Amino acid sequence: MSSTFGQVFRIHTFGESHGGGVGVVIDGCPPRIPVSLENIQRELDRRRPGQSEIVTPRKEADAAEILSGLDGGLTLGTPISIFVRNTDQRPGAYDEMAAKYRPSHADYTYDAKYGIRAPSGGGRASARETIGRVAAAAVARQVLDTLHPGIEVLAWVKSIQDLNASVDPETITSEVIESNIVRTGDPAMAETMIGRIKQIRADGNSVGGVIECVIRNCPPGLGEPIFDKLEADLAKAMLSIPATKGFEIGSGFAGTLLTGREHNDAFRMEDGKVRTTSNRSGGVQGGISNGENIVFRVAFKPTATIMTSQETVTAAGENTELQGKGRHDACVLPRAVPIVEAMATLVITDHLLRQRSSAH
Amino acid sequence: MSSTFGQVFRIHTFGESHGGGVGVVIDGCPPRIPVSLENIQRELDRRRPGQSEIVTPRKEADAAEILSGLDGGLTLGTPISIFVRNTDQRPGAYDEMAAKYRPSHADYTYDAKYGIRAPSGGGRASARETIGRVAAAAVARQVLDTLHPGIEVLAWVKSIQDLNASVDPETITSEVIESNIVRTGDPAMAETMIGRIKQIRADGNSVGGVIECVIRNCPPGLGEPIFDKLEADLAKAMLSIPATKGFEIGSGFAGTLLTGREHNDAFRMEDGKVRTTSNRSGGVQGGISNGENIVFRVAFKPTATIMTSQETVTAAGENTELQGKGRHDACVLPRAVPIVEAMATLVITDHLLRQRSSAH
Amino acid sequence: MSSTFGQVFRIHTFGESHGGGVGVVIDGCPPRIPVSLENIQRELDRRRPGQSEIVTPRKEADAAEILSGLDGGLTLGTPISIFVRNTDQRPGAYDEMAAKYRPSHADYTYDAKYGIRAPSGGGRASARETIGRVAAAAVARQVLDTLHPGIEVLAWVKSIQDLNASVDPETITSEVIESNIVRTGDPAMAETMIGRIKQIRADGNSVGGVIECVIRNCPPGLGEPIFDKLEADLAKAMLSIPATKGFEIGSGFAGTLLTGREHNDAFRMEDGKVRTTSNRSGGVQGGISNGENIVFRVAFKPTATIMTSQETVTAAGENTELQGKGRHDACVLPRAVPIVEAMATLVITDHLLRQRSSAH
Amino acid sequence: MSSTFGQVFRIHTFGESHGGGVGVVIDGCPPRIPVSLENIQRELDRRRPGQSEIVTPRKEADAAEILSGLDGGLTLGTPISIFVRNTDQRPGAYDEMAAKYRPSHADYTYDAKYGIRAPSGGGRASARETIGRVAAAAVARQVLDTLHPGIEVLAWVKSIQDLNASVDPETITSEVIESNIVRTGDPAMAETMIGRIKQIRADGNSVGGVIECVIRNCPPGLGEPIFDKLEADLAKAMLSIPATKGFEIGSGFAGTLLTGREHNDAFRMEDGKVRTTSNRSGGVQGGISNGENIVFRVAFKPTATIMTSQETVTAAGENTELQGKGRHDACVLPRAVPIVEAMATLVITDHLLRQRSSAH
Repeated sequence: MSSTFGQVFRIHTFGESHGGGVGVVIDGCPPRIPVSLENIQRELDRRRPGQSEIVTPRKEADAAEILSGLDGGLTLGTPISIFVRNTDQRPGAYDEMAAKYRPSHADYTYDAKYGIRAPSGGGRASARETIGRVAAAAVARQVLDTLHPGIEVLAWVKSIQDLNASVDPETITSEVIESNIVRTGDPAMAETMIGRIKQIRADGNSVGGVIECVIRNCPPGLGEPIFDKLEADLAKAMLSIPATKGFEIGSGFAGTLLTGREHNDAFRMEDGKVRTTSNRSGGVQGGISNGENIVFRVAFKPTATIMTSQETVTAAGENTELQGKGRHDACVLPRAVPIVEAMATLVITDHLLRQRSSAH
Repeated sequence: MSSTFGQVFRIHTFGESHGGGVGVVIDGCPPRIPVSLENIQRELDRRRPGQSEIVTPRKEADAAEILSGLDGGLTLGTPISIFVRNTDQRPGAYDEMAAKYRPSHADYTYDAKYGIRAPSGGGRASARETIGRVAAAAVARQVLDTLHPGIEVLAWVKSIQDLNASVDPETITSEVIESNIVRTGDPAMAETMIGRIKQIRADGNSVGGVIECVIRNCPPGLGEPIFDKLEADLAKAMLSIPATKGFEIGSGFAGTLLTGREHNDAFRMEDGKVRTTSNRSGGVQGGISNGENIVFRVAFKPTATIMTSQETVTAAGENTELQGKGRHDACVLPRAVPIVEAMATLVITDHLLRQRSSAH
Repeated sequence: MSSTFGQVFRIHTFGESHGGGVGVVIDGCPPRIPVSLENIQRELDRRRPGQSEIVTPRKEADAAEILSGLDGGLTLGTPISIFVRNTDQRPGAYDEMAAKYRPSHADYTYDAKYGIRAPSGGGRASARETIGRVAAAAVARQVLDTLHPGIEVLAWVKSIQDLNASVDPETITSEVIESNIVRTGDPAMAETMIGRIKQIRADGNSVGGVIECVIRNCPPGLGEPIFDKLEADLAKAMLSIPATKGFEIGSGFAGTLLTGREHNDAFRMEDGKVRTTSNRSGGVQGGISNGENIVFRVAFKPTATIMTSQETVTAAGENTELQGKGRHDACVLPRAVPIVEAMATLVITDHLLRQRSSAH
Repeated sequence: MSSTFGQVFRIHTFGESHGGGVGVVIDGCPPRIPVSLENIQRELDRRRPGQSEIVTPRKEADAAEILSGLDGGLTLGTPISIFVRNTDQRPGAYDEMAAKYRPSHADYTYDAKYGIRAPSGGGRASARETIGRVAAAAVARQVLDTLHPGIEVLAWVKSIQDLNASVDPETITSEVIESNIVRTGDPAMAETMIGRIKQIRADGNSVGGVIECVIRNCPPGLGEPIFDKLEADLAKAMLSIPATKGFEIGSGFAGTLLTGREHNDAFRMEDGKVRTTSNRSGGVQGGISNGENIVFRVAFKPTATIMTSQETVTAAGENTELQGKGRHDACVLPRAVPIVEAMATLVITDHLLRQRSSAH
């Protein structure tokens, strides 16, 4: 049950980092939605390794194949299966890691839970698993464009360590974000961030940061209280991404410093629509979208793999040391931007379809 | 589908704040678990109005009735239904609110979604809905005590606005938390927090803050990657609580300031067990518990209802003002502590039962 | 998970035959559907004991109370909870049964599964549990009448033992079925059936039979291949009713005697619609409704409780004899007719709402 | 949601008959279960075309590939994906069928539901979809053999039209069933059945029949009342198989002719176990297995594709005639035997795992 996400637009991901490949089955996609391999490949290319000088240099083409569910460029209403075969397998590079638990990785917990573990790479815990999510979201994107055009989902790097970008969620564009390899929304900060990542990598160390995301033009009425509130499903979606440690929406943790008088969003009519004059709610009230921009932030810890000797234990239960090696991201955020967008797109698409079943 | 939480230990809540009552049906509770009305009522009393001088003075006994699923003090393995009849209904007190959208409440979004809304109180969006969750968690607590004794779930007020409590999750006790009416884990800070809440209330204003929670003695191996990671389900659980705006686990947002070298938790053998020498992971790695304390924090915004005139609109679409009145919490955190514990208990119980199905 | 039925229009039933009461929570009902207590009570009265001279003489008013989800006679889009308190409890009447396993009842299997059992009545395995289903279906009926008027669901007694009714599913009316206490669709056969039931009851014995059901004016397109085919969900719904042993749709088992040439339903255009000139498919092709009448039959075994001494064993594992007593139906079919209709109504309503989410 | 089956041992099938291929993702398989490609391929070979002179002569190797979830011959506890690439695609053979609705096929209903349809073959409605089920069941079989050795699932052809096999579910063996190409359990009847199928095929016609199945050594206690009763889930499983029109368990429809005194199964102690002296219940009482053999039957209609001219309509809504052609089974039952076994195996495995979560 654990690899399924969504209630109506439902995805099932599968695959380990070093087995046959990774992929996804989408069930519940409406029929007659135009989908092309190009839609999917474009998004996969945004998250693949080797795309720039600040991400892991691993060479993985991540070439997608659509196995089912489409005919003549249209969805059939049947399960859509998308598969990416693994190619860059170097089991040898992971021999030491197989015997020793990498600190702050999932090696130990997978052993504790399953009593067995894919012997190389990160198995299912690898970020490679997110390929299926990104591919599915590329299809979801087409569903939105067909059934409810105009909804935009944009994420960007808000901070790298203490380096903060200044970004206006109202006006930020995809062009600005994609104009720099760190995918921050603040071009003036991009070079500084890139410099920090390079410096940290040169030191064999790693850094984390915060990704911010906005969903614009989301119609009011999405979200299913009590438990499937829109922010609850967004929080779950984000915390399911590897390396995430926090989620906040609207005013978030900083909002706890305000009083109610400072925090409340006043309602005003504007062009015949109910609008709020501020947006500390972050576009969601009572678990339901209110038509304002949905704005949230996700905390990513520094990459666990570092090029340093670290204290750890062996699978056999002996204290030891582990020397990190291999080709890894010193900072996952540039490649995590499309993953955050993907999960947000999946949540919105699912809730849009859920709302349709009871609307009248 | 929206009022169901959990996969194996599954709860379905129902009820509006001013209808017949509120309650819960628990499906999937193992048989032969000792459960008493006292178990349930004790937890309900911790979240009910009128319990202290800093919460709403509304008089609601919140007396629970068990409608099914028990015989002779033991669960039957069949659905357990628990019901609390509404008693303190004063529809008149809400007349103005029925016509005008209360800022930062769910009035407008419920209308936008459903095209209809319970005319008084907060209907389903009222915090009164959480009664069902707390009652269900009291049963879940008994499941844990029977099947896996020793797991502790403790929450406390970590901050009220800028007032921060100093609490050690390793050693904090229920006695300390319950020793003060604000339910902070730092008795030295309690009076200051209580003073702040009283002052804010006297001003007709409101405040929020942060609740911290620890789960101790959780066995390694709980959590179901990829999407039902333990932290993902905790995040969803917490963001489904009214007035929450953020969730973070372990190092959280502050962890994004560290480098990987500073952040990683080294493994060490201790008494034959794999342990970590620090706990920035917050007890979860790769979505699975690692046996360390699970520590997370939840941000609560200031209460939306304030005793002030605010700009808003009518349901008919005209700009107007609304004067807050009624008996409300100027700060929800003291009563939210048992709700945070309840949701955490539900998540752990569900994952414990899920893990049992595949363990061998 | 076991007491939930449906995907979008989702019901959760609860309650034992001799505990506090029985009921249901409906989640996923669209908002603004007119529902009254009368809608619900009318259907409950059709299945309650004591309604005629050929059913159990137990006096149970089965008076429903709506606990949540409605305001001003309209659904709110929130969970609807309906409760019927138990009144006619005579635990004494079941003392012997508590210690001895009644043959062909669920006493032994409940003990085998749960290691505990409601000590009197039948607990959750009692037909009394179906009250929740019938109440929920009365709400579902209102959903159909509002969102897709014209869909009819009618069931009738097709046979009692070897006594077969002659009924035309195209033209049968509710008035004809309700005109006789055995609820057969063939008034000419009613007296014979009633006589058989009285004779069997006088002998302390019991009988079963077949209930047939038609769904008329069902739109084409309902059913969700591959696993949630309309006939698969109907089969599950029917086999979840106590005492059922078989299900067949359209030509059913008799259809296995025909050749394909005899069995196929030719298509013809009629008034601009695609129609079939025969209906051996029973209104469903490839798991999806085709617009023709959906016709199926359900086999009910003879009531397990008989007024005879039977060989059995005690819960302690000793051979013994059990003398049946109490007030039971010698034939459950007259009271099962509204239950079959209820389950069929729930299936159609759920599939209608499911189809709406992807239609465009 | 429609292509998912099971609650804990959960399968998601995908693929059309003439697209890239067909397959399945299994989620919830316990870790450390020995599974080999041979386990899977052996079962696929039992259902593939071209295996004998009485099934369709289409040449499809149906060679499986395991894409994920295994390492070193053991399951990892992660999703297992199995894929069979389509090879024998002759779109040309179906041109006429694409434009005209084949009688008693799913062509019209798929168009009515989705507004689009795979243009050749049968798409998702093809029996080729069952490959994923059979592959998943081969894995489930390994789960049973590891966690609860001794459970047997055997199906056989019980009747072809009016030709009835005489088979004892207590003693029938796989060897007997596999000893004849029609897969009946009564070798004396095999030649007659084979002759009938050949004769019908020579006539361009088709036949159906009944498949019977026994589950032996199933432990008492499986099945999840009220809605997920074991017989309810078996009924749904069977009615989800293409061409099925009926399901009965134990005494089934014939049992409606008996009185309660004749029908009840007396309990007796035997070797310290609770047993029944007869088995009209079919191994299930109150929705829960009682330890006796689970015996059920499934009705299959005659194959819809016949080599005859039939009246039908075009997708454009005009009356026309369709001449059947292509390579089809004149009788699907020999190849449906492993499919019935597969679905029964999936149901039992899922319920075994479900029961484990609450047992204590």
